[in-house]
Amino acid sequence: MYFCFMITVTILGYGNVGSHLVKAFTGSACAKISQVYSRSAVSLNKKHDGIDYINSLRDLTQVDCYIIAVPDDHIQDISEKLPFTNRLVVHTSGSVLMDVLDSKNRKGVFYPLQTFSKDTEVSFHKIPICVEAAQTNDLELLKKLGAAISENVTEISSQERTKMHVAAVFVNNFVNHLYHISEEIMNEHGLDFTLLKPLISETAAKIETRSPKEVQTGPAKRDDQQTITRHLNQLTDNRQKDIYTLLTKAILETHNKTNEGKL
Amino acid sequence: MYFCFMITVTILGYGNVGSHLVKAFTGSACAKISQVYSRSAVSLNKKHDGIDYINSLRDLTQVDCYIIAVPDDHIQDISEKLPFTNRLVVHTSGSVLMDVLDSKNRKGVFYPLQTFSKDTEVSFHKIPICVEAAQTNDLELLKKLGAAISENVTEISSQERTKMHVAAVFVNNFVNHLYHISEEIMNEHGLDFTLLKPLISETAAKIETRSPKEVQTGPAKRDDQQTITRHLNQLTDNRQKDIYTLLTKAILETHNKTNEGKL
Repeated sequence: MYFCFMITVTILGYGNVGSHLVKAFTGSACAKISQVYSRSAVSLNKKHDGIDYINSLRDLTQVDCYIIAVPDDHIQDISEKLPFTNRLVVHTSGSVLMDVLDSKNRKGVFYPLQTFSKDTEVSFHKIPICVEAAQTNDLELLKKLGAAISENVTEISSQERTKMHVAAVFVNNFVNHLYHISEEIMNEHGLDFTLLKPLISETAAKIETRSPKEVQTGPAKRDDQQTITRHLNQLTDNRQKDIYTLLTKAILETHNKTNEGKL
Repeated sequence: MYFCFMITVTILGYGNVGSHLVKAFTGSACAKISQVYSRSAVSLNKKHDGIDYINSLRDLTQVDCYIIAVPDDHIQDISEKLPFTNRLVVHTSGSVLMDVLDSKNRKGVFYPLQTFSKDTEVSFHKIPICVEAAQTNDLELLKKLGAAISENVTEISSQERTKMHVAAVFVNNFVNHLYHISEEIMNEHGLDFTLLKPLISETAAKIETRSPKEVQTGPAKRDDQQTITRHLNQLTDNRQKDIYTLLTKAILETHNKTNEGKL
């Protein structure tokens, strides 16, 4: 048995991040969602028990922490429009500095490092929550709030978070686009993309315990120019060819340092 | 209860693929490994019960199927050196045509579509086994042999297999290199790459049920030039910048067809 103070929270924005946060906090013993604000009434259809869904910022009541979960471009704007001062207001963005938040309230960041889709269930348990706050007391509260839904809470500065966001773009946005290209190639030849799914999941699973550099394989790693040329000849799309060429060169240079001058 | 004919198999080559095949067949009720050939005695240290480990091709005994699991460049050579004719000889390569095998024996391919490392355990159960054979009887035998270790056996022609191999390079070799770049960026800023692992595994898990194109997110997808520019300014390595630029352009063009002329 353990004790925790109940932290009251209001979520502003009911998109991918907002709706997942609502679900996550709903299952927590140490945090309680008081209100959910959304500009449009439509998105508030799906009501959760005991939560007050509102459409006007004027209806906001007092809570321990206001979490802004709106698109990056609107964070500053909504923080300026809040009809109160000196309360803890945080955003959930990986790429926006804490300081874009309006200074009339106490600033912080509560960034869950994960990709969210509306229809996909996500278990918050293992998701890193990166927290930041201007004041020490607020940082402590955000750590507790993170611990209410995840076992992985880390203090990360705005500077670090923006670096991390670039790294996240590589492993999420760019990796997903390579999946897409691969599906295009399979479809083009009447092959079932499903055949590649065990390979995709094993490729991700492999680096759970080993460094990506250590487990690199393939024609580029082996400097197998015959296979590389044959592959390039098989690609019919110039954009695919460009990506194949650049990534092959990058792997070759990473793993065969002595060849660097030749490329 | 079900019945199967016991298919006898000899594995030629004891590298990543060979050693994983030995383990997989050892647990099967419908296939039995007779011999394992390896050029070097050293790699035969780890003996499995009931298998005859040999170092000379002259010691090969008769079995239903000989599986060549050596590097691509050596497949033709070893197939020529086999001291018998008119038996079923297959290779396990994704990128080599069936016809490189010497014509004195009956040809086939037994290609497990997965990435193997010596130290990592792999469950063959879900791995697609792509089979091909010059003769119908041999194809039937290879299908049964595949079914002995996997529930996912598909007939794939040499032409299809080479296309599939290019697609596999994108989701395995190239994706792994993006993981590596991401680790480099994290390390450069003293950040723990482990923080990104839940994102990596969720990115792979997401496309189990949905198309990669459908789940694409990020600044490139949104055509968010402000974030793209900020990211590029944060990258200190030119190779990373080039990859960021090319993949961003590819995502933008894929998802914002009307912008194609502008890029």
